[in-house]
Amino acid sequence: MTETITKVLDRVNSPEDLKKLELKELQLLANEIRELIIKKVNTTGGHFGPNLGMVEATIALHYVFNSPVDKIVFDVSHQCYPHKILTGRKEGFTNPETYHKYTGYTAPEESDHDLFKVGHTSTSVSLATGLAKGRDLVGGKENVIAVIGDGSLTGGEALEGLNNASVLVSNIIIIVNDNDMSIAENQGGICNLLTELRKNNGDVKDNFFKALGFDYRYIDDGHNIVKLIDLFKSVKDTDHPVLVHMHTIKGKGFKPAETDKEPFHWIIPGTLDRLNEPSVPQTESYESITKDYILDKISEGEPIIAMNAATPGVFAWDKSFRDKLGSHYVDVGIAEQQAVAMASGIAKRGGKPILGLMSSFVQRTYDQLSQDLALNNTPATLLIFWGGIMGADATHLCTFDIPLISNIPNIVYLAPTCKEEYIRMLDWSVNQNEYSVAIRVPMVLTKSGIDDTTDYSQLNKYKLVEKGEKVAVIALGSFFQKGKEVCEMLKSNLGINATLINPRFITGIDKDLLESLKSNHSVVITLEDGELDGGFGEKISRFYGNSSVKVLNFGAAKEFSDRVSMEELYKRYHLNNEQIIDDIKNIL
Amino acid sequence: MTETITKVLDRVNSPEDLKKLELKELQLLANEIRELIIKKVNTTGGHFGPNLGMVEATIALHYVFNSPVDKIVFDVSHQCYPHKILTGRKEGFTNPETYHKYTGYTAPEESDHDLFKVGHTSTSVSLATGLAKGRDLVGGKENVIAVIGDGSLTGGEALEGLNNASVLVSNIIIIVNDNDMSIAENQGGICNLLTELRKNNGDVKDNFFKALGFDYRYIDDGHNIVKLIDLFKSVKDTDHPVLVHMHTIKGKGFKPAETDKEPFHWIIPGTLDRLNEPSVPQTESYESITKDYILDKISEGEPIIAMNAATPGVFAWDKSFRDKLGSHYVDVGIAEQQAVAMASGIAKRGGKPILGLMSSFVQRTYDQLSQDLALNNTPATLLIFWGGIMGADATHLCTFDIPLISNIPNIVYLAPTCKEEYIRMLDWSVNQNEYSVAIRVPMVLTKSGIDDTTDYSQLNKYKLVEKGEKVAVIALGSFFQKGKEVCEMLKSNLGINATLINPRFITGIDKDLLESLKSNHSVVITLEDGELDGGFGEKISRFYGNSSVKVLNFGAAKEFSDRVSMEELYKRYHLNNEQIIDDIKNIL
Repeated sequence: MTETITKVLDRVNSPEDLKKLELKELQLLANEIRELIIKKVNTTGGHFGPNLGMVEATIALHYVFNSPVDKIVFDVSHQCYPHKILTGRKEGFTNPETYHKYTGYTAPEESDHDLFKVGHTSTSVSLATGLAKGRDLVGGKENVIAVIGDGSLTGGEALEGLNNASVLVSNIIIIVNDNDMSIAENQGGICNLLTELRKNNGDVKDNFFKALGFDYRYIDDGHNIVKLIDLFKSVKDTDHPVLVHMHTIKGKGFKPAETDKEPFHWIIPGTLDRLNEPSVPQTESYESITKDYILDKISEGEPIIAMNAATPGVFAWDKSFRDKLGSHYVDVGIAEQQAVAMASGIAKRGGKPILGLMSSFVQRTYDQLSQDLALNNTPATLLIFWGGIMGADATHLCTFDIPLISNIPNIVYLAPTCKEEYIRMLDWSVNQNEYSVAIRVPMVLTKSGIDDTTDYSQLNKYKLVEKGEKVAVIALGSFFQKGKEVCEMLKSNLGINATLINPRFITGIDKDLLESLKSNHSVVITLEDGELDGGFGEKISRFYGNSSVKVLNFGAAKEFSDRVSMEELYKRYHLNNEQIIDDIKNIL
Repeated sequence: MTETITKVLDRVNSPEDLKKLELKELQLLANEIRELIIKKVNTTGGHFGPNLGMVEATIALHYVFNSPVDKIVFDVSHQCYPHKILTGRKEGFTNPETYHKYTGYTAPEESDHDLFKVGHTSTSVSLATGLAKGRDLVGGKENVIAVIGDGSLTGGEALEGLNNASVLVSNIIIIVNDNDMSIAENQGGICNLLTELRKNNGDVKDNFFKALGFDYRYIDDGHNIVKLIDLFKSVKDTDHPVLVHMHTIKGKGFKPAETDKEPFHWIIPGTLDRLNEPSVPQTESYESITKDYILDKISEGEPIIAMNAATPGVFAWDKSFRDKLGSHYVDVGIAEQQAVAMASGIAKRGGKPILGLMSSFVQRTYDQLSQDLALNNTPATLLIFWGGIMGADATHLCTFDIPLISNIPNIVYLAPTCKEEYIRMLDWSVNQNEYSVAIRVPMVLTKSGIDDTTDYSQLNKYKLVEKGEKVAVIALGSFFQKGKEVCEMLKSNLGINATLINPRFITGIDKDLLESLKSNHSVVITLEDGELDGGFGEKISRFYGNSSVKVLNFGAAKEFSDRVSMEELYKRYHLNNEQIIDDIKNIL
């Protein structure tokens, strides 16, 4: 690609500089910013459509308001690139060498213009109510602004936030950035209402936002900087809750993204260079196996319902798959609480819900897992994807699902180690009626080549894979392969024939097997691809507390690591095989 | 009290019997049921106002609909007594000897008329969407009805549920039981809207429920059985989502409860016999200490904001206290997610939020604790009340807060053992700016008599209370007293001078102290008043895994115990001091 001309942006290093520009220069600035974002995100990967849709609005916001005195909270903050460019961080977009310097989300450690570290949706309004209340109590006068997308509005926290924001008796401005999309299609009554409002230029009989008590304003052309400035000026310094409903186009300025929004929500590096290449045929994966299983069972007449909360892409549930599912598909929108409770209701009524959730987003539904599901033992199947240690942003870590799920009574949380086990577990879960079941789907497909015939209704029976002595290695789920490698190294380096165990059940202890190890093992180690605190291994440590067996737990530390490489994390957590062997040697 | 005459009820053992009554007998039946509830709840304690408000509506529901084929889900189910009386369980109200036979909530194990075990609010609509979806997929035709109070409507899960329910293309009936109250005053824009609707007989310009897409019906007199029957008949077998907005009076039929609703939401045994007695002066408690602290600091000019989510009664934050707080008080309604996120926002803006939460309801806000609060290290103070083992209903257990909170990075979770420590911790938390802090407030006040001068900014420093040898007892928070007793028994029974440790920090390990114990201790025991799985003790077990020190963890099992007595639970969990001593003896 050619170099982007940044004639206007060259003069803008802060919102103050922006205010010095002439109005007609602002659209030029928008063009420059848009081009930078397209180029940068195509190089590094990242959120694409959401950022392109917010270029003009962000310019107008910073033109009118006085950040960081005025406080702008960006919901989920996957639309914050224009904001970063305008608030002193444009080098992260102009200079390929510093493309990776800044996170993809708002980050207070980068700039005073960022209020919170945010990466989960639907939080901005609630956070803003706090900023407003704090301001009022300490005697400030600034504007508090929450920018939230129509997709994020379907989340319970956002709705709780609106219910509270609308009755504040002071300044708060909610900007609903309505691009008629969630990550995939937006869902529910609110979505239909927004459509009605857009069709009628904001004027309908039953206005949800007015009903809540907001002073409601509508702007149809959310890419017209001059109009946006006028509108923002008219609500600036308001003494009561205002809600600006702003219609924008997701992916604005990049035609393929405007036309087909879903695949451009977030892109991987080089996506734009491959637009005209034929799509790569999908290879077998846990995702493809899951889809095949679901379609097979439906064709056999099973009342399966494939469910998710606005993230079908996480499981590769593309449009073609969803179309095939028809009434066997439910996307509840960004509403994980609803997803789990609805799954429980479906299971209660004889349906077979299979609910996909990304590990990091399971966090949004603890109480529903406990009360709506586990307490009622409704036989829903939850598939937890992406669980494990990864070099992600601190907002999207996937190390916490084991402590979260496995300490809730009743739920059976399973950890398959290969395709054959996964299919068997999935099939068992779908066909039983006694337990709420979650399955931690590994990232990388492995096959044992041997059909799994286990009866998983016999809970908490671990699989003794290799019977050895002295050292036992209990290797959970996606770390089973690592366990095998450690056993091989114990043999080759130390001459130890170690015992290898595949526990398969995260949520329980195989007391008989563990007890039997005491006689000829002095060390037991556990390996888990997740947080140690509150996790699987600690339960093994507790079990052996009354004995002379020594136990070492390997897994992730309790921390919000932030874009730390896997290599560094493995080293930090002593998860490299050599480190594990050393640690074992030290206590033998 | 005199015996209740149950002339009509004598003929009603099921909803079928109810349908045989003449319309004019139904109000007599309501009177009988109301009298039974008043007498029974005054004897056993329980939810009072909510049940009195639903007598007529429940009769009408069962008269019109065909339970258990038609499915009625009662939100939070603290209004289900009339339902229980009409569905084969009237002996739980007519016969004092079986007053305790049935739970205070819906319970599928008691009756096919109860769909779910429910005790947390705001879940009914989501569960009902599942029942409806399941029905449609397996080919049923029944009505699905969710009964939800106006207070419960402010919870995010309910709002997510409404967003999904309103777009179903089949039968679902939401009955909003609007009594203009949450547990205390209802809060927010939705509450104001409901008031407008009541004032205007359901006819307003901007109707929240119509905006979402519901076919909306209003009934002002929710105690007129004939009118209710007519309305329910008119929506029965609907082929689309209907929302019935029904105005009722909380506490209906018992004047003091109608007049002053909050204290009659839930009553303790004998409340009605003491109505004219002067109120007992409050004795010192953790609740009174907290209130005094907050008022003191506010009078000194501190920007403290006392916050809660619709349960001020849990902390004894009565009306007089709230009035004194004025703008320093926030009740967000039943909206724990909002509460935590708002607290984070307040702290970010320099306010000092002190958010009270009941242990069981912390479960409703995991992701906000993690993302909105801990990830941002905003210096909010959370007070967790009622944490510990208790003989409660399975829906209200308070054993899970330690595993839930303490495995989230960054949060400092403290466990005071006496008044002096509590005040010091609270004051430290309010005055620091580095950490998000939670404090587990014990139920029973104890005093050490010695001012605590600890600097809690030195994280994870345990307090060595008694230096001994052989056995070390690490006794957390409300179990510190038990730890002292165990040490005394170790001395008197076994002649062991045990080490006694008050860890104070739930969320971290004092490695130096624990390391130092290795030299002259062979056994370490941990005592915690909560679930063992994922809890505090397991972290100590993990620490000593590489050593020859034996560790025993004492605490609650991972289970949903249901109205099991404390005595039985202590026995079951080996928490009686004699059992603990025996267990120690066995491994010494």
